[in-house]
Amino acid sequence: MEIKENSLIRLLKRFEKGSSSVIRGIGDDGAVVMLEQGGYVFVQDGLVEHIHFEFSFIKPYYVGKKAVYVNVSDVLSMGAVPMYFLVTIGIPKRITKAQVLEMYRGISAAARDFNLIMLGGDIVSAESDFFIDISMTGRLIGQDYLGRDKAKKGDLIGVTNYLGESAYGLFILKHGKGRDIKGVKRFIKRYIDPRPPYELWNELIKSGITNGMMDISDGLIMDLERMMAESKKSARVYMEDIPIPDMLKKSSMEVLALSGGEDYQFLFTFPRNRLPVIENIKGKGYHVSVIGEVTEGRGVKVFENGRPRHITSKGYEHF
Amino acid sequence: MEIKENSLIRLLKRFEKGSSSVIRGIGDDGAVVMLEQGGYVFVQDGLVEHIHFEFSFIKPYYVGKKAVYVNVSDVLSMGAVPMYFLVTIGIPKRITKAQVLEMYRGISAAARDFNLIMLGGDIVSAESDFFIDISMTGRLIGQDYLGRDKAKKGDLIGVTNYLGESAYGLFILKHGKGRDIKGVKRFIKRYIDPRPPYELWNELIKSGITNGMMDISDGLIMDLERMMAESKKSARVYMEDIPIPDMLKKSSMEVLALSGGEDYQFLFTFPRNRLPVIENIKGKGYHVSVIGEVTEGRGVKVFENGRPRHITSKGYEHF
Repeated sequence: MEIKENSLIRLLKRFEKGSSSVIRGIGDDGAVVMLEQGGYVFVQDGLVEHIHFEFSFIKPYYVGKKAVYVNVSDVLSMGAVPMYFLVTIGIPKRITKAQVLEMYRGISAAARDFNLIMLGGDIVSAESDFFIDISMTGRLIGQDYLGRDKAKKGDLIGVTNYLGESAYGLFILKHGKGRDIKGVKRFIKRYIDPRPPYELWNELIKSGITNGMMDISDGLIMDLERMMAESKKSARVYMEDIPIPDMLKKSSMEVLALSGGEDYQFLFTFPRNRLPVIENIKGKGYHVSVIGEVTEGRGVKVFENGRPRHITSKGYEHF
Repeated sequence: MEIKENSLIRLLKRFEKGSSSVIRGIGDDGAVVMLEQGGYVFVQDGLVEHIHFEFSFIKPYYVGKKAVYVNVSDVLSMGAVPMYFLVTIGIPKRITKAQVLEMYRGISAAARDFNLIMLGGDIVSAESDFFIDISMTGRLIGQDYLGRDKAKKGDLIGVTNYLGESAYGLFILKHGKGRDIKGVKRFIKRYIDPRPPYELWNELIKSGITNGMMDISDGLIMDLERMMAESKKSARVYMEDIPIPDMLKKSSMEVLALSGGEDYQFLFTFPRNRLPVIENIKGKGYHVSVIGEVTEGRGVKVFENGRPRHITSKGYEHF
């Protein structure tokens, strides 16, 4: 890209959205924001070309959107509403100004959707690989956070919507065939445009029943193991109850629902006696599955037809 | 690097420092912090291998330190005290676990120095280039921020310490000779370990005389131009008053003090009648130079022996 930083900053200002809380926005060494007293959540998550995505599969617009979504997902799963974010992008020469603009259009679209304010960030050159790294701050809704360490013995385990959709979408994209199969579009869309299920999250939060919560980003089993490790508990999960899309079952790719990664659905625990609240939320047309329970002990045990099932691939390992 | 993310997180927890304001630290989808009501500064700045540094010139420990410093410098220059930060690192396979650990030791050392708390971040693989990206939050000291848009007509322009040191240090490192020349060490140190002059900054802040402030990261002239553009003013600068180290003069490399970049010194403006306050700070043993003045108009004009001097290289262009 051949563009001077000064002009890039001017360009970014186009995407700036005013807010009464922002005293100084893009264009200085830092942004200045007035914050009320309270609990705030801080997250930071990046996407790297060739590792998390390929531009041949996903357009810059959606890379921008996705980079916002993965952070929104983290903030929500702590029980907070996302508010502000900053973006660093590393741009190798082959990336054009038009592509950078398209990416910021995607970032802006996702930001508008969640009422977020972009405070600035950094735009740097990179030698080979493009990367985008976003930090985001949100405000806790309740007095306390929801977290991986809050699962309690006897809790039931719930997940939102379906699992493995994104991983199956990526599989289709990678193998270049099957794109025309009826019903496949939704999986590809979930990989490319993984908007966190905010409305359903909001129903859960309003109900106040959740104890532990996290987003599923690296695969159900691995993420559930992390939650159990932090909560110092064990989980029993029933294959029959995991929300696996029919198409994955038909293709014998159920494993993607257990370990595919990039689901950006919510995994949460709640007291067994609050099951009617979940039924009520389902009655409103939302898709929630109760997939197991929290017990004393360590680790995650998966059962199928009443028998333990050994899981070889638990999720996406970053290294 | 061959290490699982779960073990890396455990490893990072070693560098975690407790604080009563942090309700939930490393190990969840996000960190939770209790904040008082007030004005907060948000910054985010990254360093990319082959663009900002080479591991052949600077060890991982100092890359970690420097990544913290550049953000501390930005927060300070807004008139705020840095408090919390998050780190994303992108790690190609050739980087060892020992090197990653060394980098976090550097991050921790810089954090301790400024009383900062690491809240978390992201550790991702990268295909070719290593990168580190840090977001930092600080709290405004006064009611208002100091910024690039605050320079006033008639203000004098000050800079802290010497300029061009870091650029000269890099020059020495790159050309591989001259490392043994007496007095060169300090320049190399400034490139490798550019700690912002916090104590001097503190004197300036306590005095309350500064109007505009920014840190010099891309070269004096370019950064001063940015300040003048934001303040809608013009600057007159006198070559004779710019703090150019003698060794740069001897080597005819004065230009590095004007446009070398990575100085991480502070550039500030203050009312002419407060000059005695600056003299008083200098009397305490600090090095401050008054290099020019703010006038109506646009742009930066440099004078040498009373005559305009044309500056061809104004600073570091990122693209």
